[in-house]
Order: sequence, then structure tokens, then C-alpha cells
Amino acid sequence: MRKLVECVPNFSEGRRPEVVEQILEAIRGVEGIRFLDSSSDASHNRTVVTFIGEPGQVKKAAFLAAARAAELINMEEHHGEHPRIGATDVIPFIPIAGVTMEECVDLARELGREIGEKLGIPVYLYEEAATRPERKNLSKVREGQYEGLKEAITRPERAPDFGPACLHPTAGATAVGARPPLIAYNINLGTSDVRIAREIAKAIRGSSGAYPSIKALGVMLEDRGIAQVTINVCNYREVPLHRVFETVRSEAGRYGVNIVGSEIVGLVPMEALLDAAAFYLRLEGFQPEQVLEKRLLDLSE
Amino acid sequence: MRKLVECVPNFSEGRRPEVVEQILEAIRGVEGIRFLDSSSDASHNRTVVTFIGEPGQVKKAAFLAAARAAELINMEEHHGEHPRIGATDVIPFIPIAGVTMEECVDLARELGREIGEKLGIPVYLYEEAATRPERKNLSKVREGQYEGLKEAITRPERAPDFGPACLHPTAGATAVGARPPLIAYNINLGTSDVRIAREIAKAIRGSSGAYPSIKALGVMLEDRGIAQVTINVCNYREVPLHRVFETVRSEAGRYGVNIVGSEIVGLVPMEALLDAAAFYLRLEGFQPEQVLEKRLLDLSE
Repeated sequence: MRKLVECVPNFSEGRRPEVVEQILEAIRGVEGIRFLDSSSDASHNRTVVTFIGEPGQVKKAAFLAAARAAELINMEEHHGEHPRIGATDVIPFIPIAGVTMEECVDLARELGREIGEKLGIPVYLYEEAATRPERKNLSKVREGQYEGLKEAITRPERAPDFGPACLHPTAGATAVGARPPLIAYNINLGTSDVRIAREIAKAIRGSSGAYPSIKALGVMLEDRGIAQVTINVCNYREVPLHRVFETVRSEAGRYGVNIVGSEIVGLVPMEALLDAAAFYLRLEGFQPEQVLEKRLLDLSE
Repeated sequence: MRKLVECVPNFSEGRRPEVVEQILEAIRGVEGIRFLDSSSDASHNRTVVTFIGEPGQVKKAAFLAAARAAELINMEEHHGEHPRIGATDVIPFIPIAGVTMEECVDLARELGREIGEKLGIPVYLYEEAATRPERKNLSKVREGQYEGLKEAITRPERAPDFGPACLHPTAGATAVGARPPLIAYNINLGTSDVRIAREIAKAIRGSSGAYPSIKALGVMLEDRGIAQVTINVCNYREVPLHRVFETVRSEAGRYGVNIVGSEIVGLVPMEALLDAAAFYLRLEGFQPEQVLEKRLLDLSE
């Protein structure tokens, strides 16, 4: 089977399309890379890019994009709502097919070393690639953001994994890591009481002691007049969609509230939905290879 | 998007692997064809082949395989349990991606004409490609089988759509058609009473007046000591897997019996399982294009 790794780098530029375009060109120029998506947000002043390919090609594209971003983005002039530490803020590698998490961790470390040595940008390894437990959490790595890290980076506990122990004068620092695919999943409730959505969010999220890989908030959908539990499913193999759905259904029942619908925002790995189908249909001995399209994919070049 | 058609020809040879191999070679030799499966059954004396590709290539491969089968298989010497009318017994085209049923019907008619004219084999169009309502049903086309059709083919109501109004001396006749993907789906019951499985099969199948595109039988799984409803889901867009499952669950409940599991035999289109996931998770606005692998497939050459 082909090895496929996804890469979702975030760049600190969401207002100048001509700059974003030059970064995308660096990625698209690498042979074998399949460009899936690019989404710029002006208030965050940030662009999230998604592409996929074989491990070596993905690493090459990520490096070239980081090099281009270091030339084009000046963190001294950057303002935006989203926390960030550098021009190329984060680069996560995500195993998709025929690749283990360990291989993605190795890939993150190789790229981190390259960015540190060749571009002179300090690199922090995070999530599965983290070398210190506290750096598994990206928000810890970004503590103080670009402005605060200028000072903090000189402290031993904030020393980068690769590159100089000082920020790059324009590109700042970069976090490179490996993680499972993240699914943005929202569940809509048959109530206008946002407090119920907040209670349910607490009942499922890791920060409240429930499922460690689940992040959740209760929000109000003003246009529809209903409350929503908005969820990040950060490891669908540990906590699959159907378990999230059934736990929310059970908790909502306590308030006499039904689930009126759910939605997946953006991309989702096929396996996550196959798992849900297999759960509800009580499938025995089902293999993803039975899916016609999966066969085609394994056969395609 | 690429146009993809599946073809599942059935050949009247399941005992001589060297003959089957020569037919498979004819298919594999066509550029762009992706060979998915071949399954020979000695008691049926029959081989079912599955391959996929662009419409023109699939038609070419099917024609070359039928020509090879006509050289290698002599229906005068053929014996087997499965009903059949010719060396290449049936050739169905199945729309998979970027192709309508109408295009598969056209493909069936073009191939039928070619087999009739170039190979001198009478061809009957069936299912969606049928030119007479009664020929939608393949068992009507095969009535009397090879032996009975020798005489019957001379009657106006059994006249072939293409080719001569007499059987080919060794290759007999061939049925060419177009149909939706068929899913072989079994539901296992928490009972050893096969009568309950038979009652449930009656409650869901078209021949008893229920879902027209569902075929079903109640059988006993001797090794597990449980009864099973064995099902052909012949049009999952009309009657999806979850509706079959839920109807069986409801009917089984009448006898105090639970569903202990279900199984998909062989290949299944991704869409059929995505539909099930979307039903149970109550997904709103879900698009198959959100599936990462679907994106890759659309991008691959």
C-alpha cells in the first residue's frame, strides 16, 4: 500500500492573498503533492493549508513553504486574534494510510532539525512528537505568543528542540508535530437553552475529566435558535464518532432534549464514518478493503 | 471527475483454472483496467469476475473476454448447478463514479451489438438495459437455460436483441445489462429458529410485496447454531442498508429476537456505508466530498 501523510501547516498571514499564493506555489511545486485545501481568515490573519502525499515529498513541501513564509512574513508587523509564535506557526503531520504515528513523529523531527539548521528558526516539537510531556499541549508551546517568547526562549524550560535559542528576527519560531486526524464535529440540540449544551460539553470533554481526546463547548446557533455542542474529535480511534454521539444523546435525554442533527465540518477520514456504520449495523468481520473505493485508492498511483 | 464503470461478467467455467486464467488475461491486457476480483465455484461450474475502469476500456475488456470464452468454453459439455445460457453468461455494467445509469445502458447496448455482430452470439439486454419489460428480470431471460433456449430462441417473444436468432454452436447466448451495485448483506439473529428468519425474509423482500429491490431468504447457520436473513440489496439508493437493518430489527422484535450482527459479503460502494453513518449520526448537509479518501480518488489518475 502507498504511504500517505497529511500535512496541515498554519501560516501567520490571512490578509494578503498575493503572499499566501506564493507560499501555496512552494507546496504545489513539489512533485506528487496533492493539494486539498487552503483557508484564509482575515480576523485571525492566518491561513490553514491542507495537502497530502508520500512522507518524503510532504516533508519537502513543508520545508519549502516554511522557507518562503520566512521570506515573506514579518512577525514584527503581524496582528491577529489567533495565538501564534511564528510566520509558519505550526506544522502537524498526520498519518493517513500505510504509515504509523511513529513514522510521522520521525518526519516531524527530521523537518524540525532542517528548519532549525537551514533556516535558523527555533523549532518546538509538539503533540506526539514532543520531547517533554508539557509540550504535548500546543497551547503550552505557544504560551506568551511571539511577543512573549522573545524573552522566554532564553529560559532552559523553553529552550527549542532545534535551531538557535533566540527567535528568528522576522519569522519567529515554529511548532512541528505529529497527531491523529482531527474531526470537527457539531451536534445540534432540540433546545434554545445554551446552558444545556454547555453542560453536555462538560460531560464529554477531556478538560472536565471525561474523554481525554475530546474538546467541546456549548454554543448558541442564533440563526436557527438552537443550542449546539461544538466538538473536536482529536483521536477518533480512541473515541469514535458514534460514542460521542451516543454520549451526547444520553446526556441530552436527562433534560428531555433530543439531538436534531449533527454535522462534520471540513474533511473526515473514511475510516471514521465506516466505524460509525459498522457500529450501528453491528457489522461482523468488516474490512475497509471491502469498500470499492478503498480498493481503487490502493491500486492507484 | 473520472468516469468509472464496474463490470461483473459471469463465465460458465469454474473447474479448469487454466481456462479461467486465459479469460482473465484478456481482461488484464486492456490498458487502464483495474482487476478487482475473480471467484470460481466448482459446483456451480462458474466464475464471477470483477473489474473497473473508464467506460470505453471496460467495454473493450468485456468484449475480449467474451471472445476468448467463446473459443474456450463449449456449452455442449457444460454442467453446473447455476442457471446459465452461454459461455459468457451475463455481463452487467454498474455505474460507480461520474457516470449515469443511462450511460451504462448505452454501454450495454453497444457491447451487445458488437458481440452479436462480430462473434455471432445472440445477445439479450436485461435489467436497466432491457428493451422489453419482462427482460428486466434476468431469470426470465434465462428461462429454460442453454438447453431449452435452443428451441425457444426461434419464438418471437424470445428473439435476441442482437445477433442471430439461433444459439452459437458452442458459446450459446449472452445477457448484457446495466444495474446498480448489488450488496450481499446478511443479518444474524439471536435465535436458532430458522422459521423466524424465513418470516422476516418474507417481510422485507420484493417477491412478497415488500421492498422491490430486496431479495431475501431465511437460512440456518449450522456452525453457529443461529438463523440468518441472507439478503441481496439490489439498489441501495432506493432501499439503503439502514432501512433493511431497522426493518429486520423491528420484525425480529415481534418474536422477542435481537439482531446479533450483520455482515457484508464482498465489495460495497463507499456511499452505502456513508449513508448508514449519516442516518444514524443524523448528519446534516454531509457531502461525500468531505471524505478525505474521496478527494484523493477524484484527484488520482
